[in-house]
Amino acid sequence: MPRAIILDCDPGHDDAIALLLAHGSPEIELLAVTTVAGNQSLDRVTRNARAVARVAGLVGVPVAAGADRPLVRERVEMHAASVHGESGLDGPALPEPTEPLDPRHAVDLIVETVMSRPPGTVTLVPTGPLTNIALAVRREPRLVERVRQVVLMGGAARTGNATPVAEFNVLTDPEAARVVLRAGWDVVMVGLDLTHQALATPDVVRRIADLGTPPARFVVELLDFFTSAYRDALGFGAPPVHDACAVAYVADPTVMTVHRAPIDVELAGELTTGMTVTDLRDPAPGDCPTAVALDLDRERFWDAVLDALARLGPGGA
Amino acid sequence: MPRAIILDCDPGHDDAIALLLAHGSPEIELLAVTTVAGNQSLDRVTRNARAVARVAGLVGVPVAAGADRPLVRERVEMHAASVHGESGLDGPALPEPTEPLDPRHAVDLIVETVMSRPPGTVTLVPTGPLTNIALAVRREPRLVERVRQVVLMGGAARTGNATPVAEFNVLTDPEAARVVLRAGWDVVMVGLDLTHQALATPDVVRRIADLGTPPARFVVELLDFFTSAYRDALGFGAPPVHDACAVAYVADPTVMTVHRAPIDVELAGELTTGMTVTDLRDPAPGDCPTAVALDLDRERFWDAVLDALARLGPGGA
Amino acid sequence: MPRAIILDCDPGHDDAIALLLAHGSPEIELLAVTTVAGNQSLDRVTRNARAVARVAGLVGVPVAAGADRPLVRERVEMHAASVHGESGLDGPALPEPTEPLDPRHAVDLIVETVMSRPPGTVTLVPTGPLTNIALAVRREPRLVERVRQVVLMGGAARTGNATPVAEFNVLTDPEAARVVLRAGWDVVMVGLDLTHQALATPDVVRRIADLGTPPARFVVELLDFFTSAYRDALGFGAPPVHDACAVAYVADPTVMTVHRAPIDVELAGELTTGMTVTDLRDPAPGDCPTAVALDLDRERFWDAVLDALARLGPGGA
Amino acid sequence: MPRAIILDCDPGHDDAIALLLAHGSPEIELLAVTTVAGNQSLDRVTRNARAVARVAGLVGVPVAAGADRPLVRERVEMHAASVHGESGLDGPALPEPTEPLDPRHAVDLIVETVMSRPPGTVTLVPTGPLTNIALAVRREPRLVERVRQVVLMGGAARTGNATPVAEFNVLTDPEAARVVLRAGWDVVMVGLDLTHQALATPDVVRRIADLGTPPARFVVELLDFFTSAYRDALGFGAPPVHDACAVAYVADPTVMTVHRAPIDVELAGELTTGMTVTDLRDPAPGDCPTAVALDLDRERFWDAVLDALARLGPGGA
Repeated sequence: MPRAIILDCDPGHDDAIALLLAHGSPEIELLAVTTVAGNQSLDRVTRNARAVARVAGLVGVPVAAGADRPLVRERVEMHAASVHGESGLDGPALPEPTEPLDPRHAVDLIVETVMSRPPGTVTLVPTGPLTNIALAVRREPRLVERVRQVVLMGGAARTGNATPVAEFNVLTDPEAARVVLRAGWDVVMVGLDLTHQALATPDVVRRIADLGTPPARFVVELLDFFTSAYRDALGFGAPPVHDACAVAYVADPTVMTVHRAPIDVELAGELTTGMTVTDLRDPAPGDCPTAVALDLDRERFWDAVLDALARLGPGGA
Repeated sequence: MPRAIILDCDPGHDDAIALLLAHGSPEIELLAVTTVAGNQSLDRVTRNARAVARVAGLVGVPVAAGADRPLVRERVEMHAASVHGESGLDGPALPEPTEPLDPRHAVDLIVETVMSRPPGTVTLVPTGPLTNIALAVRREPRLVERVRQVVLMGGAARTGNATPVAEFNVLTDPEAARVVLRAGWDVVMVGLDLTHQALATPDVVRRIADLGTPPARFVVELLDFFTSAYRDALGFGAPPVHDACAVAYVADPTVMTVHRAPIDVELAGELTTGMTVTDLRDPAPGDCPTAVALDLDRERFWDAVLDALARLGPGGA
Repeated sequence: MPRAIILDCDPGHDDAIALLLAHGSPEIELLAVTTVAGNQSLDRVTRNARAVARVAGLVGVPVAAGADRPLVRERVEMHAASVHGESGLDGPALPEPTEPLDPRHAVDLIVETVMSRPPGTVTLVPTGPLTNIALAVRREPRLVERVRQVVLMGGAARTGNATPVAEFNVLTDPEAARVVLRAGWDVVMVGLDLTHQALATPDVVRRIADLGTPPARFVVELLDFFTSAYRDALGFGAPPVHDACAVAYVADPTVMTVHRAPIDVELAGELTTGMTVTDLRDPAPGDCPTAVALDLDRERFWDAVLDALARLGPGGA
Repeated sequence: MPRAIILDCDPGHDDAIALLLAHGSPEIELLAVTTVAGNQSLDRVTRNARAVARVAGLVGVPVAAGADRPLVRERVEMHAASVHGESGLDGPALPEPTEPLDPRHAVDLIVETVMSRPPGTVTLVPTGPLTNIALAVRREPRLVERVRQVVLMGGAARTGNATPVAEFNVLTDPEAARVVLRAGWDVVMVGLDLTHQALATPDVVRRIADLGTPPARFVVELLDFFTSAYRDALGFGAPPVHDACAVAYVADPTVMTVHRAPIDVELAGELTTGMTVTDLRDPAPGDCPTAVALDLDRERFWDAVLDALARLGPGGA
């Protein structure tokens, strides 16, 4: 039986690939897509999500907009235009959405979806700042018991990207991340330790191009832009498709090793705010609800992405 | 025309008096009562609010429960049992509520109430931790433009109560207070600088007792407990009825002097977290949206309380 | 018997007056003058101190230079040129020093002076950042038992000057202030609560001018500049002679009321770093070693300043 | 020509081995040994240092005591009795010192030693909290230009020991560490990233035992205790001889790889205070004065330790 997920995202190149992967994976049932300000403003990432939904051929799955700014902090300079461009999804031409935007707020959609399904069946997959998830669990505390798992892309146990020790999504809304990491539910943090192993090398891009379908062409155009942007802004030889890793974990948890460890977020540091402080010293206590992803099986990861894109077929666009 | 308010509270002895004052003031139209964990757990303060509503003879006004814990922080030790007792409203016997609890979450009730009324007509009067208000404005950012004013009981420009510099409501949920103080709407902070002038002295209690009505007797029983508790826990000669001051300001802004000043909340201090940092050095900039209440006209304040209690009449109970 | 003091200062207009007051007070024996970077760089304040010593006719009292930057923080922007001018002592022409600079470091001079005098006889009077005093007590922990009292100008229990809640001297080196306030010795904090009552009004300036001596003329020229600077930079009608208040307290502790209260320094706040957090809520514990000055007897304070200037006589210059 | 060093330490088992290594290395000239409170109280670590000096046969090299507590923080619970025992050097019987304690304060000895030697010739090797070094450079700022290099044992770029992200020496006095890391001189941080590779395995202990000399026997007894303590307290299979690594680097910088990177210390974090925040993302700027040790050539490291112990000969004890 496929695992039911809500994808909470801020597309974003790697969010777009995550969405395509989610829709194309037979192991995943995509219940809803929600958006949050992060890589770009709420308006832009919502438009991007709907455009990607059309590329993916996603029909009948609600897409709803959520928080337009972080839980506590200001919105200032939180966007990642240097790697995602002004639109948040520079590169390919974006098609007009065909499906309407769901009128509900993302937080309401998340709460209603989880509370209306059997307990322990819905997995939340946030790949942007954790604002919507934090608002949802404060608005409806029973989510903690009701959700199966939270598999988030964000954070870093060792080296950050936005600062020496903080990752962009968590730094953008560290208070929301603390709420999510301390809620008590089962959380898997798929952070930079893992995602910097998921580099879309020229060889990978070629394999995707060889699929020849419209969704595959769309991904190739995304990756062409993303490759240049990551090289120019951060000196990477190939770009990491961060968010797709979280989806890949849900589809097949054996695609990466995950280490149980206490994780919390620094909120008050002068140099370390937004760091996901991960205790890698000792075996975690038996009831530790948080875990960090450490090692990726690159080959199987990319096979899963290729399979999902192939499965989307030409009807995607 | 009376001013329409939503009273967001955590009764609490002074919250109870605030509710009676709001319902008994001809200058105020009470649209809704919402509750938030603070002086006691959400369950207890909600039960207390409904009991006080019955004492006040409040009919047809929705009472809805809200956040059961702060926006970001843990719930640990946030209750004020030392001054409000185990029930949150020790002293009088509490009647069983007659009106049903509104099924909506307080945050939804606040958003729906404000958005369904004409712009600029609803004043929010939070007298507990600011969790509900912060959640509401993050859930619906248009509240900032739509609300007339936020008149909050909380904070202190100079001396705190829970710590040397922090007041209990703000210390309990400092992140929510920051959201509210930085939102950009018109905020009047009725804090300890003002409320420590509103002491229910024996003379005041006697005047209330002389009214002889059931609501007045209820208030006298509240104040008897509150007088002992404040004396034993904090060394006060008479207890301050903090929350009633915020309502009194809405009913008649001339009952106190209010000084426009920048106000923000410290979130990261070792000694000062939860302090409402108020810049009293200079004239505030012309567009400063925050103000602090400084001097109370005690006589007129107590007259207003007495008038409202008299107006509730015997039918309250 | 006069009280022996070491004046640790960063002249600075009010430091200059403090030095003249100390030398002219029969109740005070000035053992040494030490300097610290603060109102201006170490070089400038040291030159200023020596010039003022000549104006005061101070002979045979060592003047030594100390710390050129704060204990932990950077030196950036710590100078107060807006109120003291580029020289740190703008206004009068400064005479060339006649006495040599003591070759010892201020910290060594402080340690040697205190340790060579009978226990409990030397009072430290720091009127700048507390760097030298903190270094001295870390270098020689026995100072805590050996010093009679520390009477410092700095801090504020309520309203700051450099920030809404922090005073300049403490903000410049908050870690040093924490060391001094937590050392366990008897500390009197003469902060802005007190010193903003010591305003050199035109009437005061006229009385000083009437003395007609060279030191009095020097003070008048200082106050003329200081009056303009405080008016332009901070909107004051008359300038506060902060540092002289600390010396006046040593000369006659009855010139102000002093309230025993726990005082500590915030080091980690986002808005409150450098605040001297003072617990004014309750009676302090019996063994509380810190006290804050609250109310000044203005008349007797200025009489003491006038007397001291008169006593310096014409030979000062 | 051997490199002249001052060893500033808090013995401590690994400090003891560091001292023996320093004295036995032909590449090192040991100018002075200074002590600082850390692994144990100042009294105990000073006694330990003198006992180890006797074991090493160290004659004519001054040993001086320094700071008895951190630069700013309290002394509370800063000792590491769980791994070093109550004496700070449990295990072997400690001989009575034969050489007198130098009467100078460690800070004065450091300043005098560096300032009296040719510029650029003295390397500071602190292996405990950085209190003495911070006090020295604040007392005499010219040390920054005068010292050749600071090679410190402390900190961690990735995983801590005292907390998930902080190492014991830096956590004990983080403000001193900031002073040292920001001073502008050439600093090599030999932290846990490196020292956890220098494990005294049973094979290593056997090789040392085979030397058969009194100093070697002393080291074996140290390591027997240290092995048990590290296993019981921290779950290590073999104990890391942290401090000896810093000395080994001075003797032969090619024994480890060192990566130039910006390093600073978090002072204000809720979870991260005392973390040495190291920017491993990018190539460091060309003028970056700090570097972190990353990979140890274990074989050559232990060969160097063995050689030094062999060179001490039987006359050590």
